[in-house]
Amino acid sequence: MKLLGNMNTRNGKLYINDFSMEYLRDKYKTPLYIVDETDFLDRCKEFTENFRSEVFDTEVLYASKALLNIYVAKLIKEMNMSIDVVSGGELYTVLKAGFPKDKIYFHGNNKTIEELEFALDEQIGYLVIDNEQEFANLKMLLQERDTVQKVLLRVNPGIEAHTHEYIKTSKNDSKFGESIFDKRTPALVAEISAFEKLDFRGFHAHIGSQIFDEDSFFKSAAVMMDFTQSVGKELGIKIPELNLGGGYGIYYTRTDKNFNIGRFLRKYIDYLETYNERHKIGLEKLMIEPGRSLIANSGSTLYTVGGVKQTYGKKNYIFIDGGMADNIRPALYQAEYEACLTNKMDEPIAGKYTVAGKCCESGDILIKDIRLPKPEPGDLLLVSSTGAYNYSMSSNYNRIGRPAMVFLSDKDKLAVRRQTYEDIIRDDVCE
Amino acid sequence: MKLLGNMNTRNGKLYINDFSMEYLRDKYKTPLYIVDETDFLDRCKEFTENFRSEVFDTEVLYASKALLNIYVAKLIKEMNMSIDVVSGGELYTVLKAGFPKDKIYFHGNNKTIEELEFALDEQIGYLVIDNEQEFANLKMLLQERDTVQKVLLRVNPGIEAHTHEYIKTSKNDSKFGESIFDKRTPALVAEISAFEKLDFRGFHAHIGSQIFDEDSFFKSAAVMMDFTQSVGKELGIKIPELNLGGGYGIYYTRTDKNFNIGRFLRKYIDYLETYNERHKIGLEKLMIEPGRSLIANSGSTLYTVGGVKQTYGKKNYIFIDGGMADNIRPALYQAEYEACLTNKMDEPIAGKYTVAGKCCESGDILIKDIRLPKPEPGDLLLVSSTGAYNYSMSSNYNRIGRPAMVFLSDKDKLAVRRQTYEDIIRDDVCE
Repeated sequence: MKLLGNMNTRNGKLYINDFSMEYLRDKYKTPLYIVDETDFLDRCKEFTENFRSEVFDTEVLYASKALLNIYVAKLIKEMNMSIDVVSGGELYTVLKAGFPKDKIYFHGNNKTIEELEFALDEQIGYLVIDNEQEFANLKMLLQERDTVQKVLLRVNPGIEAHTHEYIKTSKNDSKFGESIFDKRTPALVAEISAFEKLDFRGFHAHIGSQIFDEDSFFKSAAVMMDFTQSVGKELGIKIPELNLGGGYGIYYTRTDKNFNIGRFLRKYIDYLETYNERHKIGLEKLMIEPGRSLIANSGSTLYTVGGVKQTYGKKNYIFIDGGMADNIRPALYQAEYEACLTNKMDEPIAGKYTVAGKCCESGDILIKDIRLPKPEPGDLLLVSSTGAYNYSMSSNYNRIGRPAMVFLSDKDKLAVRRQTYEDIIRDDVCE
Repeated sequence: MKLLGNMNTRNGKLYINDFSMEYLRDKYKTPLYIVDETDFLDRCKEFTENFRSEVFDTEVLYASKALLNIYVAKLIKEMNMSIDVVSGGELYTVLKAGFPKDKIYFHGNNKTIEELEFALDEQIGYLVIDNEQEFANLKMLLQERDTVQKVLLRVNPGIEAHTHEYIKTSKNDSKFGESIFDKRTPALVAEISAFEKLDFRGFHAHIGSQIFDEDSFFKSAAVMMDFTQSVGKELGIKIPELNLGGGYGIYYTRTDKNFNIGRFLRKYIDYLETYNERHKIGLEKLMIEPGRSLIANSGSTLYTVGGVKQTYGKKNYIFIDGGMADNIRPALYQAEYEACLTNKMDEPIAGKYTVAGKCCESGDILIKDIRLPKPEPGDLLLVSSTGAYNYSMSSNYNRIGRPAMVFLSDKDKLAVRRQTYEDIIRDDVCE
């Protein structure tokens, strides 16, 4: 396993920010979500310090859906960053954290009427309109209100980026946004702009996830700047802002290319400044939305090894005390992870092992055929890079309680408490 | 959509057990898990009445993992059935429901020490030992106890069944159980039998899910009866019980074959009785473990349509107020479902639509290209056959609260309350 952030080894044991895994297990039990807070804050700084311009205002929005709780929202607030939310529940959470309302952006393809009302009532910074129906809903809700709401419009730029390449298409059939090739889109912008209770600020586009090809981002930015200019000219309006989304690739395993985010962001800013000036786009503010690339590598999950089994077919299993309930990504996306036995960091590799969870389902396999030292019951197994889309997608499948989450800096701080059996039946109605 | 259980239509509207979807929406809101209780109980009876023998004791165990809450556990108790649990949380739930302890079976490939202690303390009916390590753990825990625990041993019969076929293999590399081809398995049985605080009752095998090929079940039963006999003879012990697992296929869409469970169970019993007598197996008790096939078709999920969108590529979307947070199966297993607009049951089909959820993820698609009448915002959309592995696998992804669940007989009874925003932050530690 590649050591990330503030991981290091001493006397054959793994430490994160100088905390031993034994200390964390004894204090918090396992499974345990661990976040290297120092590393997470370093990464926040890397983004905010490099996505900065003399020409534009810039904002780095943390994409909450990757991992959100009140503690995380407070850290993002302390970093003076903005935040995007995609549901009433996420909005409620960041408000509880005292997040500045003007720095909240609300995304989503199907915000409910209640969610739109919630956002309007709280007078958050930006609503990102997804489609015509949402605009109609907003008009209806704003009739009785005296506020003016800043909005962006989500559009499809016809760039679909995949990990190592992108394709240009005018046939984007994603559920999100309106196509830039669709004649209805400028017409919708005209209507939004003409509606006095909405302040149309610009467009939002997002081209995918886990993208390592820098060109995809440049291409998409150019397409979006051209579109911003052309719609502005066509309608005779000023469109000062552009939200470029996120999707920057991160390291999960050796098969992932390196993506140097600091270097990329400086090139990105340079490209954006140059393009904006050369083509007279007239942009004043640019936003990006990293989620996974801010938090994924700072997170790990610590498990205790239960059984170790060799099948009759000679397959070696390591059974851990968590699994698909706390990390659905291997089952859902065939996602790959690295792992180590944190108490055997100096021991020789003994063979290939498959790490299986405790859920009553054959598909509950976290990692296939990983090379590890000889495992024994009671060993501690750490899976790295679980900061994004692990806790946030976790379930109570098999009525397993959600793990606790601890943040490590010079102190260890509990951010999410472990669910108890009592929590498991909390929603059950018993008469 | 095929009308299942006690669904019917009147004046173009769908009713379940005479409840209109409008009534349920107004009273409970959407998304809403609905269970046709009458249908569920009918199915329980179909199982218990047909899996009955003059020769053996028989038990039908409800597999909790499909759907469990206190209300469900009470229904299973009222039906005089047994229940299987796979975690401390499931065990806690059925105990809270006052389930008879002797009718509880505890499965799982990696029960923790705490879970084993919990089960031993409560003196539940059966522990199903998965592997050697678990036997070692049990021996250790029983040293300080004066109880005798009934146990089964999970084994792999070398039959892997898929939807429409099965394969015979001696190389079963599943994480569950010990292989019947492995010489260590009879040796393990000998040790278990020799340990005075464990009462070894027999084997448990489970060959897969959504199996429509009846032959798979007969084949597996024959293999397991032969194995029971051969181990009994080899060790000179009486092995009186056999748990045959579940996996009976159910209807999701037209592509699924019909599986007449009543007819199958009578043939199954007949086969088991004949085989047991002819080959002098000496079995006294047989168990089966339906989960999905008991509850899946009785469940539906009711959503409200939000946006309706046609992309520039002419793809038609229906946006609903739920999605992968309440039903992960389409994203996880490419599972297929049927749906209808419950207020437009008599309206003509207008085209093909893709039903997309509200999660901020392109993969949040519940049903692709389903033929429906023209949808409009405010319509009610019902997805059928969602009783199993929907609520039980649900998450709070995007910090969306879990839906409520209502059971319908002559009354409507709330079994699970809807999660609020306050629930969403309940585990967050705020200092």
